[in-house]
Amino acid sequence: MSEHNTVLQELGLNVELHDEVLKYVDRTFQQTVGAQQGRPEGISYFDHVLHESHGGRVAELVKQKKNGKKTVGTFCIYVPEELAMAANTVPVALCGGTQFSVPHAEKMFPRDICPLIKSTLGLAFSKTCPYGPLKSMAVGETTCDAKKKTWEILAGKVNFHVMELPQKKDPLDVELWRNAVREFQTKLEGLSGTRVDSAGLGEAIRVMNNKRRALQKLADLREASPPPVSGLDALVVMQAALSDEPVRFTAALNRLNAELVQRREDGFSPVANGAKRVMIAGCPSVMGNWKVHSLVEQSGAVIVHDESCTGSRYFEHLIDETATDLAGQVNAVADRYMKINCACFTPNKERIDSVVQKVKEYNVQGVVQYVLQTCHGYNIEAMRIEAALKAANVPSLKIVTDYSEEDAGQLRTRIEAFVEQLGGSAS
Amino acid sequence: MSEHNTVLQELGLNVELHDEVLKYVDRTFQQTVGAQQGRPEGISYFDHVLHESHGGRVAELVKQKKNGKKTVGTFCIYVPEELAMAANTVPVALCGGTQFSVPHAEKMFPRDICPLIKSTLGLAFSKTCPYGPLKSMAVGETTCDAKKKTWEILAGKVNFHVMELPQKKDPLDVELWRNAVREFQTKLEGLSGTRVDSAGLGEAIRVMNNKRRALQKLADLREASPPPVSGLDALVVMQAALSDEPVRFTAALNRLNAELVQRREDGFSPVANGAKRVMIAGCPSVMGNWKVHSLVEQSGAVIVHDESCTGSRYFEHLIDETATDLAGQVNAVADRYMKINCACFTPNKERIDSVVQKVKEYNVQGVVQYVLQTCHGYNIEAMRIEAALKAANVPSLKIVTDYSEEDAGQLRTRIEAFVEQLGGSAS
Repeated sequence: MSEHNTVLQELGLNVELHDEVLKYVDRTFQQTVGAQQGRPEGISYFDHVLHESHGGRVAELVKQKKNGKKTVGTFCIYVPEELAMAANTVPVALCGGTQFSVPHAEKMFPRDICPLIKSTLGLAFSKTCPYGPLKSMAVGETTCDAKKKTWEILAGKVNFHVMELPQKKDPLDVELWRNAVREFQTKLEGLSGTRVDSAGLGEAIRVMNNKRRALQKLADLREASPPPVSGLDALVVMQAALSDEPVRFTAALNRLNAELVQRREDGFSPVANGAKRVMIAGCPSVMGNWKVHSLVEQSGAVIVHDESCTGSRYFEHLIDETATDLAGQVNAVADRYMKINCACFTPNKERIDSVVQKVKEYNVQGVVQYVLQTCHGYNIEAMRIEAALKAANVPSLKIVTDYSEEDAGQLRTRIEAFVEQLGGSAS
Repeated sequence: MSEHNTVLQELGLNVELHDEVLKYVDRTFQQTVGAQQGRPEGISYFDHVLHESHGGRVAELVKQKKNGKKTVGTFCIYVPEELAMAANTVPVALCGGTQFSVPHAEKMFPRDICPLIKSTLGLAFSKTCPYGPLKSMAVGETTCDAKKKTWEILAGKVNFHVMELPQKKDPLDVELWRNAVREFQTKLEGLSGTRVDSAGLGEAIRVMNNKRRALQKLADLREASPPPVSGLDALVVMQAALSDEPVRFTAALNRLNAELVQRREDGFSPVANGAKRVMIAGCPSVMGNWKVHSLVEQSGAVIVHDESCTGSRYFEHLIDETATDLAGQVNAVADRYMKINCACFTPNKERIDSVVQKVKEYNVQGVVQYVLQTCHGYNIEAMRIEAALKAANVPSLKIVTDYSEEDAGQLRTRIEAFVEQLGGSAS
């Protein structure tokens, strides 16, 4: 029973069911993340962020809301957080990673859409997502068919704004996206009553770039062999990045990074020497979803990089900080987000190349392509990724799965067999 | 055994397997379209077009190719045929509607993508699509995730061009699409060596508009109660529209329409008085796919309109013929295609409104929402269509299916129950 149940009750949540969600997620957490040995001390902050994402963080945002600061819910890393911050709102990711809520979505929505959408909707429909009633606006995007059409249903119920992301990266596409970013800015300003100015946006850009730098540092630390931190713990950090206050998050991550630097110097790692180095590539693993990461690391491998929306796509590009006027800054924001290599783009050679590049950079021995069920983009693109990896002599395994535990046994067998055959020289 | 097997062999087809495809499709045709009573005389031309689409039509195009005229393969009604014609090429739809070829695609492609894509790919992979080796270029578009990513795979094997269709219909989207149409024009000119000029494009626009007018006339004739033609036969005409030479097609359709006018005057219909009037809304039913139409009409209902890519989306908007210069004509072409209401657009109120409008226009008693498996766009949009129809007191039934016969029994039961409960006054 959460100490914040009064807050949740005031938000109109089904508090009993919400307690069950927390218990379910906590049980999953204990069986995966919590079952690890040799976790760094600094990780406890991020465990706490996940734990408090449906408690203390909500209470904090409710308090801010009472002081006039609005919360903006997002579903995708293409939504520029800097603009939301500069418009005096708080961006919060609303993506669900728990199987618990999926059946609640399936009562109303088609079953054959991806688990991330269903988990998210299920939390909202069952009144167990505190951010649903807390947020003043939700922001969707046109990254995939299922999300694009889902926003239309939600837009009938809540204040909803949709950003159009183009499907190519040609000059007119860049213009379309820049325009979508400017529209988003106007929408935010109307919501908060605060005009975005150059000083405020500049500050938000610096805050977010610092957060990205800290995440990049963590990614760099995982280059070590063996790395000073497990892939599951790195995932916990990256999941926390989506809901925590960014300055606080960055400070905590810098502390963790310092600890990991020390570990490296001390020659300490929670990972066995010679553990096979695996990269995850594909779909995001948001909070509640530790399934495949856990299976991979339980098989004796270590995940050394995440080429995903929770992973490098979230932090690998910084915003150019040289622009001095607002229009230039807004374009710099837009252009940074346009660099993200989501499968929604075509022909997307940039993503194929970057996966092969990351394999070299992180000394990866095998790639697990992680595809959420019915995600056509990553599912079909996996063919080209596999071909490019094969050409580079890198084994890969494609896993198409949902959030349920039904296929865990079969996945375990497949992953163990895959890890077993990984050779190469992880020095 | 086709009389055109020499031609097919020269194209590198697997002629034995191709014969099996033809037999399979012909058997499906006989069990559905061919099993009807009271078919109009003029329909025989369109039966012939379907029958010859893998024979006589291929031989015709091969002959044209030898005379320097190139064939351009398309997969979607968003690809402007007028431009292909004006650039002295022949546009031909490559979409597959047969279950026969699906397993051939599943050997290489993910199983959980839509049957239309799998059927199309399966024909290509098994060397049973004569248009594959015949075409000089294939043209895809960004209408859905699965197709968008499939083009990337095919682009590695054949000369492929992708048109970017935007996802909204705002002014910048119109500009993006007009640009995509101009790019397509340039690509075609490079392929054929023929510059598109105003006279040629004007003529192509007239040819295609005349074809659309003939299809619109057929749609109008189905307003009669009972209509002078079955929905299955109307579908045969619309399927033939995608592969036949347009001037010849239009002449034949005008003859059929005249026969149907005469039938109406004579008070003759192949459909029983009082048959429930059903509209199909959603995904296309291309050649080989007569499954749901057949089940609906076998249940005693009559399909009086197709709100689909094979149906009204293909012919309901004419191109403005008033532009006199090439740039104006090309924009008129682009703008006509932008009016099509595919589920790929958001928020797509135009489609919701048009479905409700069509129900009134064609005196529809019930709507069958036809969704191909894993087509997220039409699947999720079905919720809003259903809600809009409910508000208008129109019953609807959503069917999600593939090309196989496995669910035929279950579908029959559901469709019969649906048709049974349709009331209202189909006068």
